[in-house]
Amino acid sequence: MGHSIEGRLDLGDPVHLAAQLVDIPSVSGDETRLANAVEAALLCCPHLGVERDQDAVIARTHLGRGHRVVLAGHLDTVPISENIPGRFETRQLADGPVDVLWGRGSVDMLGGVAVLLHAASRLAAPRHDVTWVFYDHEEVASPLNGLGRVALHHPDWLAGDLAILAEPTAAQVEGGCNGTLRVIATFPGVAAHSARSWRGDNAIHRMGAVIDRIAAFGNPVVTVDGLDYRESLSIVAISGGRANNVIPDRASMTINYRFAPSTTGEQALNVVRAMLAGSGATVMVDDLAEGARPGLDSLLAQEFIAAAAYAGDRPSVSAERSPFGVVAQGAPSSLVGGLRVRAKEGWTDVARFSALGTPALNYGPGDPVLAHTRDEYVPVDQIRQCAAAVMYWLEGPVIAGPGEETS
Amino acid sequence: MGHSIEGRLDLGDPVHLAAQLVDIPSVSGDETRLANAVEAALLCCPHLGVERDQDAVIARTHLGRGHRVVLAGHLDTVPISENIPGRFETRQLADGPVDVLWGRGSVDMLGGVAVLLHAASRLAAPRHDVTWVFYDHEEVASPLNGLGRVALHHPDWLAGDLAILAEPTAAQVEGGCNGTLRVIATFPGVAAHSARSWRGDNAIHRMGAVIDRIAAFGNPVVTVDGLDYRESLSIVAISGGRANNVIPDRASMTINYRFAPSTTGEQALNVVRAMLAGSGATVMVDDLAEGARPGLDSLLAQEFIAAAAYAGDRPSVSAERSPFGVVAQGAPSSLVGGLRVRAKEGWTDVARFSALGTPALNYGPGDPVLAHTRDEYVPVDQIRQCAAAVMYWLEGPVIAGPGEETS
Repeated sequence: MGHSIEGRLDLGDPVHLAAQLVDIPSVSGDETRLANAVEAALLCCPHLGVERDQDAVIARTHLGRGHRVVLAGHLDTVPISENIPGRFETRQLADGPVDVLWGRGSVDMLGGVAVLLHAASRLAAPRHDVTWVFYDHEEVASPLNGLGRVALHHPDWLAGDLAILAEPTAAQVEGGCNGTLRVIATFPGVAAHSARSWRGDNAIHRMGAVIDRIAAFGNPVVTVDGLDYRESLSIVAISGGRANNVIPDRASMTINYRFAPSTTGEQALNVVRAMLAGSGATVMVDDLAEGARPGLDSLLAQEFIAAAAYAGDRPSVSAERSPFGVVAQGAPSSLVGGLRVRAKEGWTDVARFSALGTPALNYGPGDPVLAHTRDEYVPVDQIRQCAAAVMYWLEGPVIAGPGEETS
Repeated sequence: MGHSIEGRLDLGDPVHLAAQLVDIPSVSGDETRLANAVEAALLCCPHLGVERDQDAVIARTHLGRGHRVVLAGHLDTVPISENIPGRFETRQLADGPVDVLWGRGSVDMLGGVAVLLHAASRLAAPRHDVTWVFYDHEEVASPLNGLGRVALHHPDWLAGDLAILAEPTAAQVEGGCNGTLRVIATFPGVAAHSARSWRGDNAIHRMGAVIDRIAAFGNPVVTVDGLDYRESLSIVAISGGRANNVIPDRASMTINYRFAPSTTGEQALNVVRAMLAGSGATVMVDDLAEGARPGLDSLLAQEFIAAAAYAGDRPSVSAERSPFGVVAQGAPSSLVGGLRVRAKEGWTDVARFSALGTPALNYGPGDPVLAHTRDEYVPVDQIRQCAAAVMYWLEGPVIAGPGEETS
């Protein structure tokens, strides 16, 4: 892939920028090279003040606007699996041929980071003050998370009235996120020779009713602030057995509950406990993170959603090289009726903003189903569309009266 | 423990002989030292012809009797667990204080081997020709089994009209044995992110109904040749799961069915298949060995059972040092009515004799529940009782009219 001369990032086009980012390996724990490149590029923008904490880079405007918005993306990827350097390809998808950027991180979430970096360099006078956040260690254990670390060390750096997290959402706005609870249930028993099973108490045999109950839970839908959150309750691991001729005296299962943001962690735990009732199992909470409400009542959120809808409703927008020119052409088909907001099923770092009191939305290019797969690719049109949405939102004159700039 | 001088085995007393055997480490694969000691001791008996195949030692009388009986025990033990050297202890058991020999192999089955070795040295003119079999590799994978190897290489060495295997039975006669079937069932599924479980198909969730059915199987009793065989159907291992956030696309369980000797292997497999019906699981047979009918219709078997009952019915027998003197004292309370014959639930090498066409019984000192445990111990009275039974059976004059010897 063609890098700019001297290895510096060229922020001029979000799609080519995404390709440059993919080609800089940045597996969790190894983000320094990419963080250095991002920091260097942002330091060249005279309208931004730049801060750094380990491999997290924060850039802010200080224009004295009435509101401040935070746009954030993580720099790290899951391990590379023979999928860098990236390449541009044409894929035959259901809707016909689609130009994509293939490679590790293209979906999760270097495509989104490219959108943010590009917009950061262009938006010298945004309608709201903006904080751009690029952070490390998102793909590994929660205690390492760079956003969590910055929130702990420099909470003022993250202050804002609305946050947008560039999670892959296929350029749809996804509000809030489900919570997640992981429980390890251990079933007791009494060992015996398997030729005399009546002398023992088979721990595995105690699991049947619990499995049946969990399998019957289905995927209930919970509506929160007008968005539908679909829950999942799953046994993700099971183990037990000492030897082929021994009645097992111990068995365990790992249960993962993805629960709606209106449910507290304690309520979620009670749901899982009810599944285990009567089994004799003991419960250990292995992980618990509450969800985030979508926060759609925020005026800033509605403003952003309108901009995203505008960018997404224009069939021609994604075929153009310059999103700004495209967004400026023609009136939006709908600024309000075109709102396409979904609930986010997976837990994301929007919950960290939510915990700081900042409503947060997920919005970024790429199909989340392709995240972490070897065949990770992002449609280049989605990168352009997301960049258009961010620019349209924050370039003051456009949203004030897009029709005026037409013709 | 006190060994005889020069490290040779002293066969004079079965209890002290058992202690000597326990103190010679003979974990499967490492039986040579013990096999050498056994062979050397048997070679000192002028009435026996001795053969050897690797670490199996076979000693036979050649008296031209009308019948030949086979008495067999294995020399190997499961791994030592800080439980040698052995020691004599007094245990407070339910019936009061009991003198025991503690140590690896005391139950499974060096106590039984001591009974056989002692009897082999004494029985210069038994009522039937006798083949004494001491073999290796019983506690490991079936293809290594020393009895199976001798049956393959020298089937004539094992020929006989009845076999007694010195399995621990707490000095009760246990006829035949259940068969054993081990099946690995693999459940299919479709992987997905656990936050979107409806996109996947959880392989673990398919297991609930199967576990319920197996747990409800209970322990049916099947009567074969007048003996009650209690069956066991157990899940002895279960596993599944790829990662904490992935719906598992594969899970498996290991099922062990201990089935009555009237059931064929194919019938047993059909029972397990019925448990898995509708689950989508694929079945792999990991182990299958049919059981052995008890063979109680053999006159020789009835003769042995009578002798064992006589030895067991005498409360005083076990307190004496010399079983021969004791057996000769007083009339038996019952030679026939005192038959205490049970079914053997576990699979044993009696099935190998059964496959050769030789009816076979299990009979030896020690509680089978203690086999393989670290706290393995055998009541010394049971060793004496078993030795008395063997001697009583094969010392011709006694069984012909024990009452005649009573004063």
